[in-house]
Amino acid sequence: MLERKPDDASADRIERIAIVGAGVIGTGWAARCLANGLNVVATDPAVRAEERLRAGVANAWPALEKIGLAKGAEPERLEFCAKLEAAVSRADFILEAAPENEDIKRKLIAEIDANAAPHIVIASSSSGLLPSRIQADCRHPERVLIGHPFHPVYVLPILEIVGGEKTGAAAIRSAEAFFRSIGMRPLRLRTEIEGYLGNRIQEAVWREALHLLADGVATTAEIDAAVRLGPGLRWGFMGPFLTFHMGGGEGGMEHVLEQFGPTLKLPWTKLEAPELTDELRQRLIDGVRNQAAGHSTAELERRRDACLIEIQRVIAKHWPL
Amino acid sequence: MLERKPDDASADRIERIAIVGAGVIGTGWAARCLANGLNVVATDPAVRAEERLRAGVANAWPALEKIGLAKGAEPERLEFCAKLEAAVSRADFILEAAPENEDIKRKLIAEIDANAAPHIVIASSSSGLLPSRIQADCRHPERVLIGHPFHPVYVLPILEIVGGEKTGAAAIRSAEAFFRSIGMRPLRLRTEIEGYLGNRIQEAVWREALHLLADGVATTAEIDAAVRLGPGLRWGFMGPFLTFHMGGGEGGMEHVLEQFGPTLKLPWTKLEAPELTDELRQRLIDGVRNQAAGHSTAELERRRDACLIEIQRVIAKHWPL
Repeated sequence: MLERKPDDASADRIERIAIVGAGVIGTGWAARCLANGLNVVATDPAVRAEERLRAGVANAWPALEKIGLAKGAEPERLEFCAKLEAAVSRADFILEAAPENEDIKRKLIAEIDANAAPHIVIASSSSGLLPSRIQADCRHPERVLIGHPFHPVYVLPILEIVGGEKTGAAAIRSAEAFFRSIGMRPLRLRTEIEGYLGNRIQEAVWREALHLLADGVATTAEIDAAVRLGPGLRWGFMGPFLTFHMGGGEGGMEHVLEQFGPTLKLPWTKLEAPELTDELRQRLIDGVRNQAAGHSTAELERRRDACLIEIQRVIAKHWPL
Repeated sequence: MLERKPDDASADRIERIAIVGAGVIGTGWAARCLANGLNVVATDPAVRAEERLRAGVANAWPALEKIGLAKGAEPERLEFCAKLEAAVSRADFILEAAPENEDIKRKLIAEIDANAAPHIVIASSSSGLLPSRIQADCRHPERVLIGHPFHPVYVLPILEIVGGEKTGAAAIRSAEAFFRSIGMRPLRLRTEIEGYLGNRIQEAVWREALHLLADGVATTAEIDAAVRLGPGLRWGFMGPFLTFHMGGGEGGMEHVLEQFGPTLKLPWTKLEAPELTDELRQRLIDGVRNQAAGHSTAELERRRDACLIEIQRVIAKHWPL
């Protein structure tokens, strides 16, 4: 392994990954890295952590074979190491996946920072904490950032990259290159906010769903059905904005805003809506028009329909619930 | 056509559907009904409404052929009728799909009610208005209910049925049987609330996404990417609750609540969370355990992975954006 500088954005010399925390997310990271032919060393103080980790990787392996393994990929390239220091000191890239608690992560990342070579990137899998806070006690905070995946980490492509006040541009470039090299689609946030993007949306869903459950309006199964048989099928490839744009037919988002703009004032959720200013309206309309990238509405409708039909067939084939 | 009583729940004598309002949703209804071999008569006062309706049905037809047409299904069984009275007076079932405005719908439904035979069900496609309010001016309010689809109506199975104070049980049974007969999955709400279930969730997403856009945190394309490359892919078959249950690994929802319960107090969205009481906690845990229906976590994980892999392949094959 050659010496790397933090401004070296290539991911091709990264061979050994340290994973700190081997719960559901850490196990997902191990599976994804192993499938990409990397060596993984994992550490976790929990009882039976190694056993659970290896069982999780084994359960994920058929999916990884289906996706396609990199040359040399094998589950045996996973090493478990009881001591954090030993795990991180030899790593070329470090994934932190400890419990979601600011105090725990802040202390743990400082400990990783004290034991890893100073140019090695430390990417935290935090689901929504501010990177400026969790990097605060580090000697080399410039290499600390958020690299937030969604579970199952070894199948879903999304990876949110969020830098803190002290994160360096070189570390962000290195992280983007690394995550891309293991088949992910890094999405770099412009601003550091709690919950980032995906969990802002997911948390809004979670809170509204909890209100419906707490108020006795519906069961978990009914609320899940309302999402999975309708809006959920659309969000998986169109996202919320393009879904509404397509819902407006030829009139697109402009028509939707005429039709449903006023409902922002109605109590259709417990979430307060922002003011639909002319500026916000324009940002919406321009945004989705750019996304449609010149494809005609009729073409997108036919392609959307094909996706929805085949996605439902996939679900009918594989999903038992 | 034999005389039908409102307590006759069979849908097999329904042959002619009236659709009042031929915008995006009305056109979707026409396409679904025609594909199921029904006769459709549509009415809409807008200029060029018939032309747009027929073009919309033609654009949907390849999808409907792929799903499979009923015997005798043909786009030519669509009649356009300028006068509402003539359209609804001969119908066996009436779908109202006018603009989403309480005053408009209330007046229109009273007009439909005055012109249709008294036992014929009138199902409004309202996206979130209260049925008790839109049935208020009818002489026969017992046959008025909400039958809320999601777009594209001819592909998505969900159909929320919501009765108002005066809606009769017989009309709800007839509507359930009819919607099932055209391939839908009716979900009957226990309580009349604004936004019903699907749009409570969708509106929470919409409002949070608008906040992110209004605050300049991200573009529409970035917010859409954060949903469609991660959580959106999971919601399409697991829904929000089962997604979190699966995210907890063997520990399921209980583990998730230990891990993420405290984040309900954090500003991860602009939506206020309900108190996570012992009762709500138990309702959550029992709810998802019932949904999992005895399948092992490892089995569900493998099946979930297969869905996610194949859904992404479907999207890569058909979706150009």
